[in-house]
Amino acid sequence: MKQTDDHLIETKVGSEALLKGRFLQAYRDSVRLPDGSLGSREYLVHPGAVMVVPILSDADADWRVVLERQFRYPMGRVMIEFPAGKLDPGEHSLACAQRELMEETGYRASQWARAGVLHPVVSYSTEFIDIWFARDLTAGDRKLDVGEFLEVFSASVSELLQWCHTGLVTDAKTLTGALWLQNIQSGSWPLTWQTVTAPAGTA
Amino acid sequence: MKQTDDHLIETKVGSEALLKGRFLQAYRDSVRLPDGSLGSREYLVHPGAVMVVPILSDADADWRVVLERQFRYPMGRVMIEFPAGKLDPGEHSLACAQRELMEETGYRASQWARAGVLHPVVSYSTEFIDIWFARDLTAGDRKLDVGEFLEVFSASVSELLQWCHTGLVTDAKTLTGALWLQNIQSGSWPLTWQTVTAPAGTA
Repeated sequence: MKQTDDHLIETKVGSEALLKGRFLQAYRDSVRLPDGSLGSREYLVHPGAVMVVPILSDADADWRVVLERQFRYPMGRVMIEFPAGKLDPGEHSLACAQRELMEETGYRASQWARAGVLHPVVSYSTEFIDIWFARDLTAGDRKLDVGEFLEVFSASVSELLQWCHTGLVTDAKTLTGALWLQNIQSGSWPLTWQTVTAPAGTA
Repeated sequence: MKQTDDHLIETKVGSEALLKGRFLQAYRDSVRLPDGSLGSREYLVHPGAVMVVPILSDADADWRVVLERQFRYPMGRVMIEFPAGKLDPGEHSLACAQRELMEETGYRASQWARAGVLHPVVSYSTEFIDIWFARDLTAGDRKLDVGEFLEVFSASVSELLQWCHTGLVTDAKTLTGALWLQNIQSGSWPLTWQTVTAPAGTA
């Protein structure tokens, strides 16, 4: 590889708002390409999100995790996914993870570990998804948003991996969660757990 | 789980085009929610895409694969990714995989296997990405699109997995490719290979 990335980097020349929807915010930027020519890039601006992999039981060799079934309108069908949701303005990533886990599944967790981050669409959205693992779960009431309908269930990691293999699970963040789970369960990718008893980011 | 998904399914009531950009096409649909109330869903319509995991060598226990480094404008940085690209109108998925592999890396493959599909953003884009594996590679000249700049390199599967772990690789499709690679290499998820000597979909 070359020593700098000057032969790859694109720089902003100008920007125009294309769409200010209720949910989608799109822009078209004029960019200077690496060869000096001009191009344009259209993309969505997204506030960022979190995903939670809730570990229900890690006593046996085959752990159990909490999953959701949710109708996804652009897909036209029900998808199997880990709990996830967008960051509220100014919200800390862990606070969002706690909130989404509780709202969507009713579970509260006293142990949390941040595994990393994923970028679902590098070509046309600024979205990032922080990947959180949660354990030591306590069941409670959930508080779904208005217009949110989803079903909560649990599965073993081996079931989840089988569903990733057969194509029952195709959601990219959930496939990424499965990659982490497989390597955490095997001991290859150890997590650093923190005990969190109060909502984060409210001190 | 319940016997039907009527308690989850949303149905279209109406649709309006929000944006007809050069690249992004957005819609806002009115939808009937499972409880009978009305809601709206904003989403992008995408033609679909393919990703190729090119296996450069599977002679040793630790395989080598072909990867790319590309500046992704919405991310503001260079990302490590498997070769990928959008389907042309009417293009067969395998033909697209062959074309993108050749255009972006110069490699042609005589063995192909479709692993599955992933959905990068189930909440706001119709995009799917077909996951192809390619082997028996022959190097040649690449033919980048106008305005496309990227660097091709190779790495072992263990290096790739390490980069997924440490956060050097965060692109969702590439993380999904790593999940497949890990399980294919271990023998858990065998592929069905087909020999393809001519461009697909042109017979």
